[in-house]
Amino acid sequence: MKITTRAEDFPRWYQDVVQAGDLAEVSPVRGCMVIKPHGYAIWENIQAPLDRAFKETGHQNCYFPLFIPMSFLAKEAQHVEGFAKECAVVTHHRLADTGSGIGPDPASKLEEPLIVRPTSETIIGHMWSKWIQSHRDLPMLLNQWNNVVRWEMRTRLFLRTAEFLWQEGHTAHATAEEAQEETLRMLDVYARVCEDVLAVPVLKGYKSKLEKFPGADRTYTVEGLMQDGKALQMGTSHNLGQNFAKAFEILFQDTDGQRKHVWTTSWGLSTRTIGAMIMVHGDDKGIVLPPRVAPIQAVVVPIYKTDAERATVCAEGARIVAGLKEQGVRGRLDDRDMKPGPKFFEWEQKGVPVRLELGPRDLAEKKVVVVRRDDGSKSPVAIDGLAKHVVSALDAIQRALLDRAKKFRETHTHKAATIAELKAALDKGGFVEAPVDGTDETELKIKDETKATIRTVLEDGSNLGKCVLTGKQATRRALFAVAY
Amino acid sequence: MKITTRAEDFPRWYQDVVQAGDLAEVSPVRGCMVIKPHGYAIWENIQAPLDRAFKETGHQNCYFPLFIPMSFLAKEAQHVEGFAKECAVVTHHRLADTGSGIGPDPASKLEEPLIVRPTSETIIGHMWSKWIQSHRDLPMLLNQWNNVVRWEMRTRLFLRTAEFLWQEGHTAHATAEEAQEETLRMLDVYARVCEDVLAVPVLKGYKSKLEKFPGADRTYTVEGLMQDGKALQMGTSHNLGQNFAKAFEILFQDTDGQRKHVWTTSWGLSTRTIGAMIMVHGDDKGIVLPPRVAPIQAVVVPIYKTDAERATVCAEGARIVAGLKEQGVRGRLDDRDMKPGPKFFEWEQKGVPVRLELGPRDLAEKKVVVVRRDDGSKSPVAIDGLAKHVVSALDAIQRALLDRAKKFRETHTHKAATIAELKAALDKGGFVEAPVDGTDETELKIKDETKATIRTVLEDGSNLGKCVLTGKQATRRALFAVAY
Repeated sequence: MKITTRAEDFPRWYQDVVQAGDLAEVSPVRGCMVIKPHGYAIWENIQAPLDRAFKETGHQNCYFPLFIPMSFLAKEAQHVEGFAKECAVVTHHRLADTGSGIGPDPASKLEEPLIVRPTSETIIGHMWSKWIQSHRDLPMLLNQWNNVVRWEMRTRLFLRTAEFLWQEGHTAHATAEEAQEETLRMLDVYARVCEDVLAVPVLKGYKSKLEKFPGADRTYTVEGLMQDGKALQMGTSHNLGQNFAKAFEILFQDTDGQRKHVWTTSWGLSTRTIGAMIMVHGDDKGIVLPPRVAPIQAVVVPIYKTDAERATVCAEGARIVAGLKEQGVRGRLDDRDMKPGPKFFEWEQKGVPVRLELGPRDLAEKKVVVVRRDDGSKSPVAIDGLAKHVVSALDAIQRALLDRAKKFRETHTHKAATIAELKAALDKGGFVEAPVDGTDETELKIKDETKATIRTVLEDGSNLGKCVLTGKQATRRALFAVAY
Repeated sequence: MKITTRAEDFPRWYQDVVQAGDLAEVSPVRGCMVIKPHGYAIWENIQAPLDRAFKETGHQNCYFPLFIPMSFLAKEAQHVEGFAKECAVVTHHRLADTGSGIGPDPASKLEEPLIVRPTSETIIGHMWSKWIQSHRDLPMLLNQWNNVVRWEMRTRLFLRTAEFLWQEGHTAHATAEEAQEETLRMLDVYARVCEDVLAVPVLKGYKSKLEKFPGADRTYTVEGLMQDGKALQMGTSHNLGQNFAKAFEILFQDTDGQRKHVWTTSWGLSTRTIGAMIMVHGDDKGIVLPPRVAPIQAVVVPIYKTDAERATVCAEGARIVAGLKEQGVRGRLDDRDMKPGPKFFEWEQKGVPVRLELGPRDLAEKKVVVVRRDDGSKSPVAIDGLAKHVVSALDAIQRALLDRAKKFRETHTHKAATIAELKAALDKGGFVEAPVDGTDETELKIKDETKATIRTVLEDGSNLGKCVLTGKQATRRALFAVAY
């Protein structure tokens, strides 16, 4: 398919490359997407290193119910201002012929509606109030991989969908200090996976009061910068303080004999990061996958005219793929009976990092042509030692993508001392650092005038100069951007 | 906790060992369970070999939406008699203050209710009708790991819950033969994982018309036998024929240029298998985990009196665990400051296959006491070469559990030629083979009189003798049992 260029229409380009890359599709269910095999395999390659990191830091996986009793959310709503109420509400437990066709059976109406979980702090809090009795039960370090639903009116594949896949970590601690350490430890895990696996450089910081999770004392975030100059939140780690402990009465007997509320954290990273990765690395030919996340890292495309040529070239191709596998490279021989041109095109659109072109002449010369997806460079490489060459090329591509994204961020990060400078810098796209007085009013007014929000607070302090908006003494330096 | 004996009250015993083993708990959401870390890690150990087997047989993972439009199920209902209508129905997308507290906002009523998927044939069929155009698109070999909901009134942890975790495979083929091969291939995968991983021997066969999935032409099953003499379906593999292809208009252009309906299959295995494994291997002390599925395969329990002893014994314990890890054994040092007795008890209840007791005297003699969970045998083993000894012990336990379960099944499988024999055999518990005339009436009548159902049809043929119930010429040999 023809892909709209980024310059022409970035949102359209995004839609096109997701489709051309065969990653995901809209479904007939409003706001819900279908993640196709190529897209899902990317998610598996994000899950694996994250899951390893969670287990290495002492967390255990578990599973809590999909449904939350409405009263649990109502309880949270009492305590938390700004609680989002858009959610999927289950009210009946039976379909039946109601006379005018099949519909919810009125006799099956639930006494208490159930909510499809938007996140699981409440149900976990309820269970913890039973499980946690003593300091010996702490820390409680849990994680679950699941699906959550947040009703959305305007949806975009991966970036914003009613249902999405994620992991949600939930921990409980005996002290505020431990909870804070945990919050930052998991933020670091996210930053590392974003940079090392997705090759997306991120800025770490905390959210302003207006932007934080309402149930959190402090929300930390890792923020990436897309090629259109917009920011995207890649993951969040919340220090929930004692808010949920108090709402759900989670108490433990401490070593001093006193019963105390626990301190909890939660942290999540979702399939949204796939959208970010696409917007950071993709080009006008399609998506570009960092090797560590690519389901297929190197594809061998045989070139031939006769059946005899096909047989010998494919046989060598199969040997090459076996050699790649020995070196830990996810290789694939594309031996479909098609012309090579459309194959090149397809694998480019699917973002495969390295293409190996192999024709009869190459074979005679005992070499293949190695084509890099990131820069389009082509080089003939001897078949002898090819697998090791590919390993190096994949490393080089992984590094190059991260470097390029870092450079882009550098050239798209500015400082502003006045509101005029802030606006001018935001017009160019990217992050803008600016001192602010720290009030909600200032933040809202800047958002109103620029559409930009505080992505993270970078620094608190006293010698920050004057607020860009009010000219009052600034209390913090904030990073502004227009965001997804 | 005190565990009810199996002889006393088997269902109560089951409940007790699940709780004592810390595997799962009921949640405040009617019919939904919480899978705790020890239980979830078992599921991960079932998922890994299954997922590998799916990928080795050419399947790709993907993800389809949680919600199904009601009209999709209604469409299926038209075609399929006996369609189950108990399900979770989403009717609203917002909670709001309705005057009398928080409730579903009437203004947010969905035009068409959504059903939380009980299984995904319909939504996948809908997507396939777009994706599949040509014989080149076939076979389509997909799988998804997810949660599904089937409203249940009476629930039991793992065995029957409203929400459960499973995988559902869905494939589409150009010919009936290929679909049938696929159906049996995946049945074999299930049988292999049940026997090799869960150490649960299974009988393979197909379901009678009354017991099959209504949308299937034929449902194949793997059936295990529990210690109380009841059968449990461990997994099913459905040949769906062209039923869904016709309902959802999934057509492809064949090599002969004709447009034809595809042939589809689906197959699923769920967290229910954890319940089966517990009921097959557990004893009056608690659950007994087959080593391949055990999150912890060997636990080192240090025995000491003084702090100095504790230090040396724990240091050696850590070395032992490191040595186990090198041999691929999932080991754990239990260095909690508690008496050894309660630790022994806890790890027994959690079903850990091998316990290694290590005290100062053992250390002086350079040995540990190896205790097997399956038979309680204790043997002193030299620390030098211990890890290899544990590897052999784990293999022996895995084999012993399967052998014991096979023997149990052999002694609990009988043949019956008359209804009196059938009843007598069923009273003893277990499987009973009997010839039947193959009519629904006979099957229903036998069920009515004995509570037993046809678990699988073993054989069709003509020289089967007389039907146990009607005395007419039998058309098949069936395997009866009372089932979970």
